[in-house]
This record gives sequence, structure tokens and C-alpha cells, in this order.
Amino acid sequence: MKKVAILMGSDSDFPVVEKALTTLDKYGVPFEVHVYSAHRTPEEARAFAMNARENGFGAIIAAAGKAAHLAGAMAANTTLPVIGIPIKSSTLDGLDALLSTVQMPGGMPVATVAIDGAENAALLAIQILAVTDEDLAEKLRVARADNANKVLEKDRMIAEKYNK
Amino acid sequence: MKKVAILMGSDSDFPVVEKALTTLDKYGVPFEVHVYSAHRTPEEARAFAMNARENGFGAIIAAAGKAAHLAGAMAANTTLPVIGIPIKSSTLDGLDALLSTVQMPGGMPVATVAIDGAENAALLAIQILAVTDEDLAEKLRVARADNANKVLEKDRMIAEKYNK
Amino acid sequence: MKKVAILMGSDSDFPVVEKALTTLDKYGVPFEVHVYSAHRTPEEARAFAMNARENGFGAIIAAAGKAAHLAGAMAANTTLPVIGIPIKSSTLDGLDALLSTVQMPGGMPVATVAIDGAENAALLAIQILAVTDEDLAEKLRVARADNANKVLEKDRMIAEKYNK
Amino acid sequence: MKKVAILMGSDSDFPVVEKALTTLDKYGVPFEVHVYSAHRTPEEARAFAMNARENGFGAIIAAAGKAAHLAGAMAANTTLPVIGIPIKSSTLDGLDALLSTVQMPGGMPVATVAIDGAENAALLAIQILAVTDEDLAEKLRVARADNANKVLEKDRMIAEKYNK
Amino acid sequence: MKKVAILMGSDSDFPVVEKALTTLDKYGVPFEVHVYSAHRTPEEARAFAMNARENGFGAIIAAAGKAAHLAGAMAANTTLPVIGIPIKSSTLDGLDALLSTVQMPGGMPVATVAIDGAENAALLAIQILAVTDEDLAEKLRVARADNANKVLEKDRMIAEKYNK
Amino acid sequence: MKKVAILMGSDSDFPVVEKALTTLDKYGVPFEVHVYSAHRTPEEARAFAMNARENGFGAIIAAAGKAAHLAGAMAANTTLPVIGIPIKSSTLDGLDALLSTVQMPGGMPVATVAIDGAENAALLAIQILAVTDEDLAEKLRVARADNANKVLEKDRMIAEKYNK
Amino acid sequence: MKKVAILMGSDSDFPVVEKALTTLDKYGVPFEVHVYSAHRTPEEARAFAMNARENGFGAIIAAAGKAAHLAGAMAANTTLPVIGIPIKSSTLDGLDALLSTVQMPGGMPVATVAIDGAENAALLAIQILAVTDEDLAEKLRVARADNANKVLEKDRMIAEKYNK
Amino acid sequence: MKKVAILMGSDSDFPVVEKALTTLDKYGVPFEVHVYSAHRTPEEARAFAMNARENGFGAIIAAAGKAAHLAGAMAANTTLPVIGIPIKSSTLDGLDALLSTVQMPGGMPVATVAIDGAENAALLAIQILAVTDEDLAEKLRVARADNANKVLEKDRMIAEKYNK
Repeated sequence: MKKVAILMGSDSDFPVVEKALTTLDKYGVPFEVHVYSAHRTPEEARAFAMNARENGFGAIIAAAGKAAHLAGAMAANTTLPVIGIPIKSSTLDGLDALLSTVQMPGGMPVATVAIDGAENAALLAIQILAVTDEDLAEKLRVARADNANKVLEKDRMIAEKYNK
Repeated sequence: MKKVAILMGSDSDFPVVEKALTTLDKYGVPFEVHVYSAHRTPEEARAFAMNARENGFGAIIAAAGKAAHLAGAMAANTTLPVIGIPIKSSTLDGLDALLSTVQMPGGMPVATVAIDGAENAALLAIQILAVTDEDLAEKLRVARADNANKVLEKDRMIAEKYNK
Repeated sequence: MKKVAILMGSDSDFPVVEKALTTLDKYGVPFEVHVYSAHRTPEEARAFAMNARENGFGAIIAAAGKAAHLAGAMAANTTLPVIGIPIKSSTLDGLDALLSTVQMPGGMPVATVAIDGAENAALLAIQILAVTDEDLAEKLRVARADNANKVLEKDRMIAEKYNK
Repeated sequence: MKKVAILMGSDSDFPVVEKALTTLDKYGVPFEVHVYSAHRTPEEARAFAMNARENGFGAIIAAAGKAAHLAGAMAANTTLPVIGIPIKSSTLDGLDALLSTVQMPGGMPVATVAIDGAENAALLAIQILAVTDEDLAEKLRVARADNANKVLEKDRMIAEKYNK
Repeated sequence: MKKVAILMGSDSDFPVVEKALTTLDKYGVPFEVHVYSAHRTPEEARAFAMNARENGFGAIIAAAGKAAHLAGAMAANTTLPVIGIPIKSSTLDGLDALLSTVQMPGGMPVATVAIDGAENAALLAIQILAVTDEDLAEKLRVARADNANKVLEKDRMIAEKYNK
Repeated sequence: MKKVAILMGSDSDFPVVEKALTTLDKYGVPFEVHVYSAHRTPEEARAFAMNARENGFGAIIAAAGKAAHLAGAMAANTTLPVIGIPIKSSTLDGLDALLSTVQMPGGMPVATVAIDGAENAALLAIQILAVTDEDLAEKLRVARADNANKVLEKDRMIAEKYNK
Repeated sequence: MKKVAILMGSDSDFPVVEKALTTLDKYGVPFEVHVYSAHRTPEEARAFAMNARENGFGAIIAAAGKAAHLAGAMAANTTLPVIGIPIKSSTLDGLDALLSTVQMPGGMPVATVAIDGAENAALLAIQILAVTDEDLAEKLRVARADNANKVLEKDRMIAEKYNK
Repeated sequence: MKKVAILMGSDSDFPVVEKALTTLDKYGVPFEVHVYSAHRTPEEARAFAMNARENGFGAIIAAAGKAAHLAGAMAANTTLPVIGIPIKSSTLDGLDALLSTVQMPGGMPVATVAIDGAENAALLAIQILAVTDEDLAEKLRVARADNANKVLEKDRMIAEKYNK
């Protein structure tokens, strides 16, 4: 199976990003984590992107805050799908990172998920791999059903308690 | 090759969405276009999403404006990757559609591109198919090089004219 | 008397939504509470909406955060008045939920109240039932007068303390 | 049948508000239109609100731009449901009117629709009257089906033209 | 000397508004404080505004949060200068109150100060009274000089400590 | 009678500011117009502010766009009431000018009116002068009544045309 | 004298950027213009930045719209001062470009000017060169005086026409 | 070597601004710190700016919150490069200070850094001095390499721990 790369612009993003790791783990999808900064280690970031496809990656997740350029820097150097997680930092509620990630110019898409949406970034990577992997697609279906059941269970609990 | 679905919430979105069609065409990627509204034809939208994988689709592009729910409604009913295009409508500069599309809850990712970013939505769909399609990946690389050359050509023209 | 439905997209919304229950209780208006997610349990949500009128409901309150689609999903499947409560979540101060709820396309109104405005959502539902229920209208008038008196009482206390 | 009031803060709002009139007309719902300003004719506005119920109204639509207080001023003086239309004016894209209309304090709901959403305001008023009027509810269902058919027709046209 | 009225929409605004009282006190300007709500006690609010001039007031300060209509409601019923304090409440950082207060329609000015700017509201009221009161103007000048000296003192302390 | 100063940061603001002149003229209030820039002619701006009171001014209106500092620069150098008009310029819809004008620090109020609200700025200046000028107050009352009548007239026209 | 580099992410930015060229020309500051895209020609952009100092540049101006990464990409690869011009594009009024340019992470400053502020970008570059170039500093002072005189001339014209 | 001035509008900004001092110290760049308010001590602020060049300064850093005019007031009175730090205060997340600092009118650039970006402000000042100071440029290069190594070290730690 192809691997998923999880990159973050700073190790301070790890507490948010961690959920992407645990999600990929749960689905048995191999991954590699790195701290690469579009601004502080641009060479390493670029080299990683350029070699990602031949190194066996199928998707790249990039998380960054503020003027979040990491996902865009990945997209500029690979034709693999790049998934951007805008990270909320000390001010502006993540709006800066959201716009820096999603408003990419023509020719360079970044698949942007919600602010701090690390779980969804991982799920999107899994969905991408599952386009041609029926086992993975089945796992996604099962998880969906499980999640639906959890919501229904909560519905039952609240309905029982409050509806007379 | 798997097909790409291009859905729009209203036929008034077509002038923006059209660029997704021409882009897919340029890459020889088969596609199907539909006008489905998350609110006006929810049944048809849902049925499309539920059957998309077995009908041979590999990715779904959904474009909608204002309280843009179409991409989310797709995501809720398929495990295929769903790409959301927030459409700018008569007010708020597309910020309403952007937030309605990108801020999805945990478990239901929508791969959001820029406001009115139809070309990038198509390219993202192609990148997703190209994860396991080396020919398509090669086409993306060639197009990238062409685009770079166009920028370099413009650089030459401007540099020649203004740098003495 | 017709019932009011109170739906929330996640049980984590309950602390905010609870005020809607206590408000309806205070007015003796029967209600039913459910956890339905537009994305995780779309079938149950849709079925509820489609049968709400014949099941004796007169209004549906739907609370959701982020890309809040629940109220819109209700509106798409019933002609009963749907009241949307945008829920403030971990970022963006509820602006995402507000725009996702209020900016509905033509043909599908959602009666949106303030961010986290559960009490007002309940009062709006009561006002809707009171259009043809003079007893309920009278209760609303009495409560209004009570509230006015509380404000006047606070005015007296502050005026006495600070005005010489 | 109860009447619907359509109030606007300035006659310059009429081109937007007009769609509320034509919508009510289409459903055969009686209405009354007025230009009342929360700031320039507060007495007339207040008097209208206070007598609206006994004058046979079932809902009040209030449209205003900028620091839009008209809907709130209505809500303060009646227990009928008040529907607010935030009007986009010369700057800020209607965000000022939206927040001034929707962010009502506890105890005073205003059922807010989209910026310039006059058609939806009228439909919401009709839905409110239809809670206890089965004929009106049937008309809403028929219109919904018609609208769905129009979308499906557009889907057919676009699908025929672009899908090979 | 004419009095200044300090009105707040809710007694929960008092902790912010209190600074207006202490500021007026410091300048020896007589004032009256009231809790009036544009929505819950519209009659009392209106009556106060209509009689304010003949009751000896020279300026009215009105503080309110969310869809803040109190200052506008005052302005609609008096020709005295009305000073609006937008109060920051549980969400949106006071932007809702700011726009609801400052974006008044033509003909009805509200002199808006910063979000939670109670001290400045009081100072503005004093400046208004000082237009024709040379003693008060002199007090303002002295306070300005005092404030400047405090800043200069802080400058000296920081400069001494950090500049070598 | 004291004069009103109308300052603008650039002569390109004149088309918006002009309404302040015509409004003051209508009330017979003497005024002086100047183009002073807080950044390009700071000396002249400062000198004007410092001498404004002794030169017979009772209020200063300052209009500026973008990072609008003119009103604040006036406020820093006079104890007269300063009224700020945020001017909408080529981008951001005047939000930059609004925040630069209204969010003044403690001790330095600027009485801010709506974006491009030149008429209201003039009316606020008149209201300030009218605190101690009964004739002017009477004129304001008469104009209010006239405006109310105009609204009522428009109400009659629309009501006649559309209410059957 | 050191040169100034003027880079733009797309030749469509030229109409805005042109004012930087004419401004540098007016001051006799040598410059070089290039179209480099952080995403489409990242190699060329990076190479330019890495060699800029030894190629005789003293400052780099970088203009880009949307998710504007060009200035940041320059800053990541040179220790020369980088000046960012956020370009307003088809939506969001340039707020996306502003936040993408100014909100740089610690260690990598970008000197950001106003949205579309090409003239100021050039002036800032000149000010930087003028720190150690007294002739250039003198030219800046002269231009300032000229500009002040133009404002004063406009003041005279308006004052003459409107002040009686 | 030329000095850098670090000005703040209030001593309450010191905890944020302090990082500028420590950064300049680390590079051995002489500096002077002052508390000057554009509004409370405009004379001292202006005098400082006017004499800054001849007093041996090469750049001025100005930090202020809310309607942040300090950087602009500096820029208006010197032709030295002025670096603005928008300070986040009690509300609006620093957006008010950002727009008040960056949206300067033509002719008066302020080199704006991120909200609360004191370290970057100092680094930008150092970069400006390093244009003609090879030793300082070398220090910047060394620090860049050190920072890159720190990121790479963190990458190694995280990669070792999570990549199997």
C-alpha cells in the first residue's frame, strides 16, 4: 500500500496533528511524519515533495499555522494530492492559516480541510488511497456505520432521558 | 479509467464550473456533469452519492454558493473523495460558501479548493486518479513544466521590456 | 397542541441546547429531543423531517456547529418552519455556523437565531404555535411583562445605588 | 386567513423586498406593506407592532440595512413571529445588517433569513401560517415538487449537452 | 451643569460601564445611571430619551451588546448627542455590537466609541459639555497633561532600565 | 455661534465629505473646510487642532480612509469633541478605516459615525452645538419631524399601491 | 548603488506593480523586474533569492495575490529585507493575500505594505537603501516636502472655494 | 553601527515587545527603548522621529494596539524605515491594530510584521542594517542555519519516535 506523509511546519503543531497519526494507524495505513518548515527548512521540504511519489507516498498531509505556506510548497513540487490542515495559532482563530492554505492559485490545488481538522485530513488521505483499494473502502464503510451507530446510541440516550 | 463527477447546486454556477470540464477534457479524464441541489433535489443528490463508487466514479466535485451544503451532502453518502468548490454569489465574497464547505465536522472530510477554484478542483481530481495511474501522473508533470515555461516566457518578456 | 422538535448535530451541543428544553417546558409546550447528524446519520435526519408534520410537530429546531447543515437538511425535507441555532465551536466564534445556517438559497428558508441562541429558538417556536393559540400568546405576553419588570427592578437597584 | 406584514426601513429597500410581495401573492396569502423606520418613525413602527395581532396579522417581515433595528423593534412590541431580512447596502456586504438582525438578546427572537433573502422571508411566513393550514401546506409541497422538477430539468439539459 | 445619562441594556454590562461613572465623578459631572433595554423595556427607554433634554441632560451614553439597539433607540427619540458603547459579549468579539451601533442610517447619528470603551464614552460626554464650559475644558487639559506625564514617567523607567 | 471644522485626509474624500457641508449649511451652522493629512501635513493638522478651541470651533469632523489616523491625530491635540468619518476606499469596504477610527485608546475618544457617514457627522456636530443652543435644537426637532413625514408619505404611496 | 528587485507572482499583477517601477525610476534607483511564481517556478524564485545579495540587490519587493507565498518564499532564501505587496484579486478584497503575506512565523519577517500598495513598497525599499545613502535620504525629504505642498495647495483650493 | 529604536504606545505592550530587545541584543545591535504614545505624548513621539536619523538611528520599530497610529506617526516624521508591530489587545484579535498599521496611504510606508511579531520586527531591522554590513549579514546567515538545524533536529526526534 502507498504511504501517507504527515508534515508539520513546527513541532508545536504536533498535539493537533497527532490525531492524523492515530487515524491512519486505525486503518492500517502506513505513514511517515516529519517536521519541515516551508521557511526554515525549505530545501528539505522541497526535496521531500519532489521524491515523494517515487518514495512510495500516495498523499501528503501538510499542517501549518499563520501564513501557512507548507501545503502550497508541497503542491508546488509534487503532482501527488496535497492535503492542507490550517492550524489555529495565538490569534485570528486560524483564519490566516485557512486563507493561506485554501486560496491557492490556478494550477496548484491544495485539498484543504477544517481548521485543526487533522482527523479529516487523515480520512481524506485514506479515501484517496481507497479509490483503488477495495479493502480500505470497506473499512471506511464500516467505520461510517460505526459512527452512525454511535450517534444513534447517543440519540437513544438523550431521547430516553428527555422525551416523555 | 474511473470517472469524475462534477455536480453543481444550481445551473447558475455553470460559468464558473465550466473550467472543471475543460480541464478534465484536456487530460482525457472521463466525467459526468449534473445539477443536483442539496436542498431542492436531496433525493437525487443522495442517490448519486450512494451509487457513485459502483457507477465507476473515482472522485466527486461539488460546487455550491451561500450556505453551500452540496459537497457535505455528497461526503455524507459516499466514501469517495469529495472536492468542494465554494462559489462566490451576490454578497459576502464567497466567505459563506467557503466556511460552509471547509469547516466539516470530524469524520466527513471535504477537500476544499479556493473560492471559484474550478480548475484546481479538476486538477485535484486528476491528481487523485493519478496516484495509481502513471500515465496521468506523467501528463500532470508535463503540464506543470508547460506552465512553468509560460511563466518563464512572461518573465523574459517583462524583464526584456523593463530591465535595462 | 403541536409538538416542537429539538435536534442537535452532536450530543456535545447539549449544554447549549438545553435552554431550549427548559424554555419549552416553562410554557408547557410538548417537545421531542434528538441527536441527528446531517452528515453521520443523514437517513434518520431526513426521515424525521419527512414525517415531522404528520407526527404532530409544528416546528423544528436544529442546532449545529461549524459547517452547520442540519437545519438546512431539515428544511429540505419538510415544509414546517425550521429554526436554526448556529453553535459556536472551537474556533471562528460561530461565524462559520452562522453563515452555514442563515445563508440558505432561495426556496428553503431557515429561521436563524443568534449564535448559541437556544432560548430564543424555543421562544420563536412558541411564537409560531401561538399564532393560532391564544392561551400560548397570553403566556408570552405575561412572560414579556415579567421580563420587563425584572429589568425595571434592576434599574431601580442600580439607580438607587449610584444616582444621588 | 391571517395576514402577513411586510415592513421596510426605507423605500430604497423596495426592489429587494418586492420579491416577498410576489411570493405571498403566488400563494394567495394576504399581506400589507409599509415603510416604517425604527429610527425615523419609531412611533408608527411601535404602534403597528403592538396592534398587529389584533389587526389580523400572523407574521411580520421586517427588512432593513446597516444598523438594522427594524426587526428587533417589531420583536420588542409584539409576540408574533418576526422575520428579519438583512439588506445589503453600500458597504460591508450586508454583514452589518445581518449581525444587527440575528444577534438578538435572550427573550426577543428574530427569525433571520439570508442577506437580501426576501423570497425566503415570505416562504417562512407562509410556512408559519401553514402549521395550522393544510391547504397552504399542500401548496408549499406542490411548489417544492415544481422546484425540484425545474432543477431536474436543468440537470437533464446540462447532462445531455456535456455528458457523452 | 447639564447631566449625563448612562444607560445600559442589561445589568450584566455594569462591570464595563462602571468606568464611565468613575470618570464622570472624577470631573465632577453629574450623571444618572439606568438599566433600560431597547427590547425588554422599550417604553421606558423611549420615554427617557424624549424627556432627556428637558430633564437637564446634555448627553446620553448607551451601552449594549450583540444586536445593540439601545443607542439607536435613544437617538431616534432625542436630538441630544447620543454616545454608543458597543459591549463585547460571549462571541464575535464585539463586532456585532460595534456594527449595530456605528452603522446608523442617515439622519440619526450615534457617536460610537471603541468596544467596551466606557472611559472614552464618559470623556466624550465631558468634551461635549466642555464646548461651552471653560472650567470643564480646563480640567480636560489638566488631565491630558497628567496622562502625558504618566506616559513620560513610564518612558523614563523603561528607558533607564533597558537603554545603556 | 461656534464653528464646525470639516477636515479630510485627501481631496479625493471630498465627494463623500461634501454632504457634511451641505448639512451644516442647511442648519446655518458656520464651518471651515480643510485638507490636512495626518501623515503628509502633520504639522498643519496638529497646529489646527491645538488652536481650534480658541479659534472659535466647537467640534471637529475628520474624514479619512484606510489606516485613518486623522481623527485620532485631532483628538490627541485638542479637548474639543472630534467626530470621525471612516472613508471607504479601494478595498476592504471601509473596515480598515472604521477600526482605525473607532478603536481609540483610553483617554482619547473619537466620536465615530458610519462608514462614509458625512451627513450624520454634520448632524452630530449640530447636536453638540445644540446642547446649549435652543434655536438649533428646535431646528433639529423640525427636521426630524420633516423626515418622519417624508417616511410616512412614502409609506402612504407604497401602501396605496400595493395594499388592496 | 544596490539594486531593488521587483517580483510578481503573475504578469496579471503588473498593472498594480507598475507603480513600484515608476517610483524607483523617479528616485534613480536601479531595479530589476521578474515574474516568478512561488508555486509554478519555485526553482527560479529560490535561485533568485539565494543569489540576490551577491548579485547586488539591497531589497526584494514581492507582489502576489490569494494565498500569496512569494514574499515568504523569498524571505526563506535570503537575509535581505523582503517587502511584500498583497494583491487584491477577484474575491475577498485582498484579505487572503494580506494575511498570507504579513502573518509570517518567527524568524522570517516580511515587511508588508498595504493591499495593492506598490508605491509604498518602492518607497520602503528606497528608505532602506537611504539608511546609508545621504543623497537618497535627501531626495526622500524633498519629495515629502513636495507632497506636503501638494496637500497644502489642495487645502488652499478647497478652503478658498468653500470657506466664506 | 546605527541604532534601532523600539517604541511602544503603552508600557502594557512591553511583555510582547521585549522579544525585540532580546533579539537585537543577541545580534549585538545597539537599540533604544521608549514609551511614546501617538495620542498621549504626540510631541515627544514627533520629536523623536524628526531627530532619529541624525541621532544615529537606522530603523524605528513601533508597537501599538487597537487604532494603532504610532508607526504611522513615526513614518510621517522621518524618512527612516519604520517597522510596525500590531499588538493584540482585549478584543478583535489584533485585526484592528493590523489594519491601522498596514493600510497606510500612498507616500508613507510602514513595514508591517505579524500581530505581536516582535522578534520578526527586530530581525527586519537587523536585515535593514545588514544590507550594508557584511558582518551582520553573516550573523543572520548563521542564525538561519542554526534555526534550520533546530527544525531538522525536531524532525529527527519526531521521525524516530513515530516512524517505524
